[in-house]
Amino acid sequence: MSNSYRVAILGATGAVGTELLELLDRRNFPLADLKLLASPRSAGKTLPFKGENLPIEAVGDRSFDQVDIVLASAGGSTSKAWADKIVNAGAVMIDNSSAFRMNPEVPLVVPEVNPEAAATHQGIIANPNCTTILMAVAVWPLHKIQPIKRIVVATYQSASGAGARAMEEVKTQTQAILNGENPVPEVFPYPLAFNLFPHNTPINEQGYCEEEMKMLNETRKIFGEPNLRVTATCIRVPVLRAHSEAINLEFAEPFPVAKAKSILADAPGVKLVEDWQANYFPMPIDATGQDDVLVGRIRQDISHPSGLELWLSGDQIRKGAALNAVQIAELLVEKSYISANSNELSAIS
Amino acid sequence: MSNSYRVAILGATGAVGTELLELLDRRNFPLADLKLLASPRSAGKTLPFKGENLPIEAVGDRSFDQVDIVLASAGGSTSKAWADKIVNAGAVMIDNSSAFRMNPEVPLVVPEVNPEAAATHQGIIANPNCTTILMAVAVWPLHKIQPIKRIVVATYQSASGAGARAMEEVKTQTQAILNGENPVPEVFPYPLAFNLFPHNTPINEQGYCEEEMKMLNETRKIFGEPNLRVTATCIRVPVLRAHSEAINLEFAEPFPVAKAKSILADAPGVKLVEDWQANYFPMPIDATGQDDVLVGRIRQDISHPSGLELWLSGDQIRKGAALNAVQIAELLVEKSYISANSNELSAIS
Repeated sequence: MSNSYRVAILGATGAVGTELLELLDRRNFPLADLKLLASPRSAGKTLPFKGENLPIEAVGDRSFDQVDIVLASAGGSTSKAWADKIVNAGAVMIDNSSAFRMNPEVPLVVPEVNPEAAATHQGIIANPNCTTILMAVAVWPLHKIQPIKRIVVATYQSASGAGARAMEEVKTQTQAILNGENPVPEVFPYPLAFNLFPHNTPINEQGYCEEEMKMLNETRKIFGEPNLRVTATCIRVPVLRAHSEAINLEFAEPFPVAKAKSILADAPGVKLVEDWQANYFPMPIDATGQDDVLVGRIRQDISHPSGLELWLSGDQIRKGAALNAVQIAELLVEKSYISANSNELSAIS
Repeated sequence: MSNSYRVAILGATGAVGTELLELLDRRNFPLADLKLLASPRSAGKTLPFKGENLPIEAVGDRSFDQVDIVLASAGGSTSKAWADKIVNAGAVMIDNSSAFRMNPEVPLVVPEVNPEAAATHQGIIANPNCTTILMAVAVWPLHKIQPIKRIVVATYQSASGAGARAMEEVKTQTQAILNGENPVPEVFPYPLAFNLFPHNTPINEQGYCEEEMKMLNETRKIFGEPNLRVTATCIRVPVLRAHSEAINLEFAEPFPVAKAKSILADAPGVKLVEDWQANYFPMPIDATGQDDVLVGRIRQDISHPSGLELWLSGDQIRKGAALNAVQIAELLVEKSYISANSNELSAIS
């Protein structure tokens, strides 16, 4: 009998939480037990899993006893509030929030890029920001062959990045506008329906918002390249799910397009999507619900002899959040970066 | 009595045509006569202008007799078909299509940038592509002070760029999706509602689509900088009207942000829109119906010591097409690049 693990999802009712449930099922994660944790507001409700209705429990002091892995996706303040309890209970927290990402003692892991970093965990492993994960998966295979000097990226971020309520708001707003009404935004500061605006996270003294700084700082940490140069412009667009990115890469020397395409065609987590005749390239509606990051329109930059342009779309909730977290959990299990459950619990099959 | 001019609009019923009508009225263009030309399909209909209903005529061999200025916005093949007739009739064609833009004998004019080029016309003046006009208005004032070496731009282009039918399709598609239906795209090759995709113009051997090559070639011509380096990624987004652009500028030496802001605050055709506390910057819904290009989020590029990042939104139909054409007509009149109407026609006031 193979080892199995006791998993808790903290924030089970959110957009990422429900995706985590689906992925643990579909990928047959070796579960000994699955505990759904959320705020007291959701306690008592149930969520379907493998034909059963699992109860949602209010998170509390004893929630993490008898748990091996906590998949946390309830926001930074919740992760911070429970991190000590989780680690002290002997569990490993895979945290989807930004709370610990830049903590030097916390590995920041994209399994296709830096799986070995997970080995150094001290109870917490951070899941990177969605836009960073998607870009990292797409450009790391090129960087491994020939180091990237500089990245200029512009994002096209869907409403899903701000959660299920934001997705609902875009739909409601859109219907209102089609009805000739003038909707008042609630989740977002400005209307997103038939509109777009720079990412609404706080802006630093350099004029970069948090989302943009994540693309710089997290990519540096994941790649182990503290001097990598990245400038990002992050824009929210009226797409429901899946982010897109226009990425300009500058290398020290020319990177042949054919070589880049052949590398990306074989790269893990990447699906090359290019039909130049049909003008068919990655689109958010095609990336939605897919594990792979869709990458295409790989071109020699006509403005720079050592530049490459590429375009991607990736499911922000899937690979940009939940899938990456589950892959980290799988990595812990495969590489024995975590001790197997020794209790004789009946496995959920 | 001031001089007045006999103007014809070729393509009066399109999205740009109706905007031209509105602008000639609002800006009190000195009209002696206004003739509306379109395909035979629209002949006999009328369009309102200054309280009158002007008849639409089918364009024909004699349409340009007694005309001083033709504002053409009926597409490249129509412009090509009638150009000789227009020029031979002694009129000046201000052409909104791409047909003559790269013809070395045809000036390509953005009045805020290269008004003097209009003086060299030989009967045709080309109006640049929308994305090019918006970028040119925003970055020329900086380029004048300190030459730009390289531009990396990613666009967020609204449905209006593909005409009135495209705007209608996005609305219809969006309603269908909200109703749970699966709409079949007709104007665009792929669904644009809640989606986005690279600009659907033919792609050259270098992997750049026509729209992207326009941003390179037209900007070079307008700026008179045949070696300016530009790489563009053009993306259509589900916005009804007004395009946005994320622009990364590389100079030979650092360009202080404060200086850039002060230059753009005073630049013609530009409105500086920046509220860093409120995270409020140019948005398509604010740019819609405005003459000015909204520019903001001007930042020192943290990835390059001589880089600047900026963000803009501009009305594609207004400054990106109709307004620029009317401004060219005004330039012809003000600078006497065209002979005034000598006939004793009663002016439309």
